[in-house]
Amino acid sequence: MTIELHAIAAPVFTARLKALVHLLKIGESEGRARGLSEEAVLGARLAPDMFELKRQVQIATDHVKGAMARLAGLEAPSFPDNEQTFAELYARIDRTLAFVASVPAAAVNGREETIVTLKLRQETMELTAIDYLQGFAIPNFYFHLTTAYDILRHLGMPLGKRDFLWRQ
Amino acid sequence: MTIELHAIAAPVFTARLKALVHLLKIGESEGRARGLSEEAVLGARLAPDMFELKRQVQIATDHVKGAMARLAGLEAPSFPDNEQTFAELYARIDRTLAFVASVPAAAVNGREETIVTLKLRQETMELTAIDYLQGFAIPNFYFHLTTAYDILRHLGMPLGKRDFLWRQ
Repeated sequence: MTIELHAIAAPVFTARLKALVHLLKIGESEGRARGLSEEAVLGARLAPDMFELKRQVQIATDHVKGAMARLAGLEAPSFPDNEQTFAELYARIDRTLAFVASVPAAAVNGREETIVTLKLRQETMELTAIDYLQGFAIPNFYFHLTTAYDILRHLGMPLGKRDFLWRQ
Repeated sequence: MTIELHAIAAPVFTARLKALVHLLKIGESEGRARGLSEEAVLGARLAPDMFELKRQVQIATDHVKGAMARLAGLEAPSFPDNEQTFAELYARIDRTLAFVASVPAAAVNGREETIVTLKLRQETMELTAIDYLQGFAIPNFYFHLTTAYDILRHLGMPLGKRDFLWRQ
């Protein structure tokens, strides 16, 4: 029994992105029931200098496609960050899920010690793939996923932990 | 090269619990500077039916000690959930870190397919250790960690993503 790199990335991202769609659909239908515009729900944030819900979803998907691409040594697809509606965000999540599914496990497995170069705003980091995944991509992904949930909860949407942990 | 079960649990929990102390210390000192009581900061929440900051910290540590115990087939230490101050929460996090450090890697590694029984309020689940870790313990841990961060940000505390990803 061994644990493979692909297995600690792709299935996690896939399950939780599908849960993110589930969360957003509740926010969409509840927002509509309350007469809130999509713009109001997707523009909600927890602090004036935090990103709005829409951007949390965009960044969550960015970390997923960035992670799968870096783990496999591939180029990540580029998304233009122009989503304005729930439907457009679902389409972005679908494109992300399709990219995750398109990366063969064999292209990832065994590469845990491969050096990943991460260009951030203020620095360039070189990390092993496993450290990048566990110390950067996954924490960032959960950060934006949970913050999306927290924004919806702060709006009073009827969500609970079961929705966060939702599995298809 | 293989990935071991202990390596995808203990180092992640340890690094992020230390970051949680870092986040709380900023909340503590900024709260004090603003004349807020510890009770006010630790009692803050994002929605009336969500847990307050203090409880988010308690549950985050519960998932860590529960995970390390289940992965190793040990009993988790029991904490009485009576913390009322920052100092008491730091002590709880320290006890959790000490428990994580006390579990030998050899007691965990190789047990990824061992069945873990999870008694939840409404159901009892049986999962392999790896599915429990990745589909339950880690998402729950990040959920409460991020929500603690989000509560502090919602209070206007001067935090950023770098603090969330903080490493000693």
